[in-house]
Amino acid sequence: MSRLLLKNGLLYTPEGVISGYLAVEGRAITYVGNPRPAGDFDSEKDLSGKLVLPGLVNGHTHTAMTLLRGVGSDLPLQSWLFDRVFPVEARLTAEDIAAGTALALLEMIGCGTTSFTDMYFHPQVAAELVAKSGMKANLCYPVQAFDPGETYEKNLSARALEALWRDCHGMAEGRVLVDGCIHAEYTCNDDVAAGVAAFAKEKGLHMHVHLSETDSEHRQCLARHGCTPAAWMEGRGVFDVPCSAAHCVWVTPEDRAIFRRRGVTVIHNPSSNMKLGSGFAPVPELLAEGVNVALGTDGAASNNNLDMMEELHLAAILHKGRRHDAAVVPCNPAIAMATRAGAVAQGRADCGVLAPGMRADLMAIDLDRPHLTPCLDAPALVTYSAQSADVCLTMADGKILYENGEFLTLDREKILFEARAAARRIYG
Amino acid sequence: MSRLLLKNGLLYTPEGVISGYLAVEGRAITYVGNPRPAGDFDSEKDLSGKLVLPGLVNGHTHTAMTLLRGVGSDLPLQSWLFDRVFPVEARLTAEDIAAGTALALLEMIGCGTTSFTDMYFHPQVAAELVAKSGMKANLCYPVQAFDPGETYEKNLSARALEALWRDCHGMAEGRVLVDGCIHAEYTCNDDVAAGVAAFAKEKGLHMHVHLSETDSEHRQCLARHGCTPAAWMEGRGVFDVPCSAAHCVWVTPEDRAIFRRRGVTVIHNPSSNMKLGSGFAPVPELLAEGVNVALGTDGAASNNNLDMMEELHLAAILHKGRRHDAAVVPCNPAIAMATRAGAVAQGRADCGVLAPGMRADLMAIDLDRPHLTPCLDAPALVTYSAQSADVCLTMADGKILYENGEFLTLDREKILFEARAAARRIYG
Repeated sequence: MSRLLLKNGLLYTPEGVISGYLAVEGRAITYVGNPRPAGDFDSEKDLSGKLVLPGLVNGHTHTAMTLLRGVGSDLPLQSWLFDRVFPVEARLTAEDIAAGTALALLEMIGCGTTSFTDMYFHPQVAAELVAKSGMKANLCYPVQAFDPGETYEKNLSARALEALWRDCHGMAEGRVLVDGCIHAEYTCNDDVAAGVAAFAKEKGLHMHVHLSETDSEHRQCLARHGCTPAAWMEGRGVFDVPCSAAHCVWVTPEDRAIFRRRGVTVIHNPSSNMKLGSGFAPVPELLAEGVNVALGTDGAASNNNLDMMEELHLAAILHKGRRHDAAVVPCNPAIAMATRAGAVAQGRADCGVLAPGMRADLMAIDLDRPHLTPCLDAPALVTYSAQSADVCLTMADGKILYENGEFLTLDREKILFEARAAARRIYG
Repeated sequence: MSRLLLKNGLLYTPEGVISGYLAVEGRAITYVGNPRPAGDFDSEKDLSGKLVLPGLVNGHTHTAMTLLRGVGSDLPLQSWLFDRVFPVEARLTAEDIAAGTALALLEMIGCGTTSFTDMYFHPQVAAELVAKSGMKANLCYPVQAFDPGETYEKNLSARALEALWRDCHGMAEGRVLVDGCIHAEYTCNDDVAAGVAAFAKEKGLHMHVHLSETDSEHRQCLARHGCTPAAWMEGRGVFDVPCSAAHCVWVTPEDRAIFRRRGVTVIHNPSSNMKLGSGFAPVPELLAEGVNVALGTDGAASNNNLDMMEELHLAAILHKGRRHDAAVVPCNPAIAMATRAGAVAQGRADCGVLAPGMRADLMAIDLDRPHLTPCLDAPALVTYSAQSADVCLTMADGKILYENGEFLTLDREKILFEARAAARRIYG
């Protein structure tokens, strides 16, 4: 088992930021602190002037939508989705999705992201790319049922999800996991939702859903079912397993109580919720009530990037502005939302913290930048001053995926070339 | 006069994004478009895969506060200001301010900013550095009068502003201008404000002020004067010259009508207004009413960087979220806020647009990045996907200040070293 010593870096640990040593053996962190750990190492890396943090976890995205980056900008949500996005998605082939997903992995690795939760079509394609890239991902197929009478047994998207589970759950030494999924309340019926929930429970999977993204979605559910999307999901058994629910912009205090009681993680997507005009999720309220809140980028069509440093920044400042209170969502809880909370949501309890026994999923920020000078408060620099281009090292399961502009598992030029070729195929 | 040809770049022009040529002769743009312009050039620069835009204009900052980056993070506004910021500012020497200002210029030039409006102490120090750096700046000294009976003639800060005007207005071939300034309504009295306004009018200067940043400032003014800060300023003659007013978070519809009638520019500072819990300025309303709205970073103590690409992004998404309307503040008006509107606010009518006859103030973004691929909509990429590290070229008055990581007018390593030394002096 290879032994690597990271030395002289600033380390973002649960006990605070320290200057010290971090040892990696195989896939795990075996030592964090001072003095220098005993024994010989196969290699040593000097991280002077670098700040090492847990890898970022993107809790909600649609990776292949990188090929729709900038499509329908500044249009109202319904027009963006129905007139611009859906017609393009209907034309996407498995080859396109491979090109768009590879582009997404390249972007995410370069931004310090080590794991992500993905909801999209042809997820087996994503699984292969994730395995090759060295990243981690929880993948799911968006189960939808527009016919109110359709049963779980007859639903084709449910079959696609089951096939994904058979093909990919646990592959690449557990770096790839499969989640149960219903796309959303407004795109599913009772029987199919309950069937997916039962499947997830039987197989021991987590669930991933969209929930109360827009006001109209929330109100239409009340009209249709007489309850909120959160209450409807709970009634279908969706929360009988650990579930991560994306958006949660329009949730009520009662919905938040359901999340807390049932251990639901809220995935906050501030860029996407703003850009599409959806609104602002009640994050300070959720945090105060003890709900696990993680961060996501959503797809690049509504963001328009996969930059978790940007989401961290937005999550920390947006709610201060909304609540007129500079003390809500401080730096350290915001960093936890971007790291540990996402790992917990994915069922990866051994990820998201720099501590012995945890997986070596980490990233480093180069502090030798004008906008990161002087370094008076490292967590504040990460949260408020840094940008993703400051990331100089990304490691997952002890393997370096990115360092100082070089991608070690992916061919940057080939991926950019193929993404541009796919865009020409799609848009002519 | 030197002749430079920029070729093969995508050019962000008033007529849209074109692929073509941009010629620079001396300080001015002399040609934009196709075909290749006639004549010989002293040098040619290939900008294939680059997007060229007008230089960014930072409409409101306090440059030397880079040395307070991260001080008092996550504290309520009053505690941040009185317990943490003011005690540090009281200790700053001219040497410290030189170090902090140089750091700010380095950061801004690397982010594509070509001009800024600065309100701080020892502004002659900033003027010298601006002259050396090749940037442009409108500088002012914050006039304050806490004694209600103090007259303009007796006020020392008014003398400092007059001295700044004598020493620096028009220096460096007009790259340095001096604005009249009162710090804010709540830090000034009637006579001093009226005196500064009369001085600005006599000398033909623009004015720069803070206005209605917080709810309490706005309400206390109503209690004190029976009118809003905007109405009080108008009554003192502050708007008799072109004025740029920073923040304007809590302005009323009547205040907005004053701005429109009197040609006041609103400087929107979204990061700072969120981070300090001040709130959200009514930007879509101001734009709809025809008010000139520009962007600023505010000081690095409340941002915590001087990154205009970030402000552009926030200005474009924040109000969509607040108004639940994805169509407000579209890309092109947002880019105009970050460029042309700021130039107009500074009284630099020949800046902020890529067109013949305008000053050659520009920056280029390197599109060869995963998060800028594919390039389906260049203005959307700039607004929603780019980060300031994508800037690969900054030029002001025809002179290249920054290119591909190299600073041509400033010594990066020396400035970072001196900023860290200043921080050690200040914080021990």
